[in-house]
Amino acid sequence: MRFTSEHRLDDDVLERGFTLGDIPGILWTPAAAAAPAPLILLGHPGGLHRMHPRLAARARHAAAEGFAAAAIELPGGGDRPRFAAVEEARADLLRVLEAGEPVDDGIVDRLVLPLVDEAVPELRDTLHALLPLPGLGGPVGYSGGVIAIGVRLALVEPRISAALLFAGSFVPRVTFEEARRVTIPLQVLLQWDDEGNDRQMALDLFDAFGSEEKTLHANTGGHTGVPRFEGDDGNRFFARHLR
Amino acid sequence: MRFTSEHRLDDDVLERGFTLGDIPGILWTPAAAAAPAPLILLGHPGGLHRMHPRLAARARHAAAEGFAAAAIELPGGGDRPRFAAVEEARADLLRVLEAGEPVDDGIVDRLVLPLVDEAVPELRDTLHALLPLPGLGGPVGYSGGVIAIGVRLALVEPRISAALLFAGSFVPRVTFEEARRVTIPLQVLLQWDDEGNDRQMALDLFDAFGSEEKTLHANTGGHTGVPRFEGDDGNRFFARHLR
Repeated sequence: MRFTSEHRLDDDVLERGFTLGDIPGILWTPAAAAAPAPLILLGHPGGLHRMHPRLAARARHAAAEGFAAAAIELPGGGDRPRFAAVEEARADLLRVLEAGEPVDDGIVDRLVLPLVDEAVPELRDTLHALLPLPGLGGPVGYSGGVIAIGVRLALVEPRISAALLFAGSFVPRVTFEEARRVTIPLQVLLQWDDEGNDRQMALDLFDAFGSEEKTLHANTGGHTGVPRFEGDDGNRFFARHLR
Repeated sequence: MRFTSEHRLDDDVLERGFTLGDIPGILWTPAAAAAPAPLILLGHPGGLHRMHPRLAARARHAAAEGFAAAAIELPGGGDRPRFAAVEEARADLLRVLEAGEPVDDGIVDRLVLPLVDEAVPELRDTLHALLPLPGLGGPVGYSGGVIAIGVRLALVEPRISAALLFAGSFVPRVTFEEARRVTIPLQVLLQWDDEGNDRQMALDLFDAFGSEEKTLHANTGGHTGVPRFEGDDGNRFFARHLR
């Protein structure tokens, strides 16, 4: 891992760009942390540069609670090499949506599972590279979408101690099976009026999780309308489980 | 209204028993409030004496945030005159449950609606009596079950500015119609594994509410297993809307 840039957001947060092999990423750390800061991996739909304002806002919010945060580019996202199989599935999905046809499981599998299979090992490598840095400590949280990535990561990566998942994307069938085996504390965000999201599928996925502590926060509004107070709720969720 | 008892819980909360005509009630006020304290009406399933430990705990939690709280006995609850129509419906309900038969809408209506029709005017009278007291101010919140009472009160009482509802009881059909016309901010608690509660009905009721700001908090666990952190979440909900 190699740092490629460094600057301060306000006076409180240090933002550092890095590359892990060919994968670009960003690490945000609270400037004045007394103890090693627990790390939260930020999930996002890809396009690190495009997502930067929103990711930086989430990272600053987390830093205010003493948490570090990191994000890496998704496979096929931003300037990373195109992911042909996923792009093909995305084109099929658009055709189906434009034709007003139902989205079948096959398309969802082809769209999401290759991403999960690539992204999860990359996120684990990122943890491996970041956690030894001075100022960072375990345990680790995962926050955000793509929900199938969060589920797989929660299942296979023992350093992930709590996850705040956003139920706003397509869910492959295998993700339901994996969800049953997830046992870490979860907080699941659902936008009740998310036009592109299947509400019943999100409720079924929440039901499927094997975790003893799981909380669903459903709010009125569309995909991008998550209320500001959920940022504070997320911080408190992680404060309960990462300290 | 007449106060019948007065003592302090810890040093921080003043607990006063009162009667409003024949209805017994309890008022909890923060001992050291700088400004008039917003009032939260505490809903409960009836039996003020039996419920006292839980109600007092909720009131102390609210007082820590600077809120006053009050509860009155439900019609037919505790030492109040028996409510024959409701008791008959309750006996029918028990027979149906013991026989493993489905609970039809008629029984729910006979069980819940008379309570709603009696309790809501009594709660409004309580507001009328309490709000002029020194140290108390508006706006007012409602917190708890019976959810059909909370819905009706939110609809007809303009002083209720926010409601934290517990979706854990039978819902008459008319309550769905009333819910569509409710517009105040709502936070709805649902225990995901509540044995005696119809989860789908609770989700349908949440969907029905007309409020622009409504949040569902669903947690694993049975009817009485609401996690402790929901008390803090409730305080923050009321802090957003009653200040």
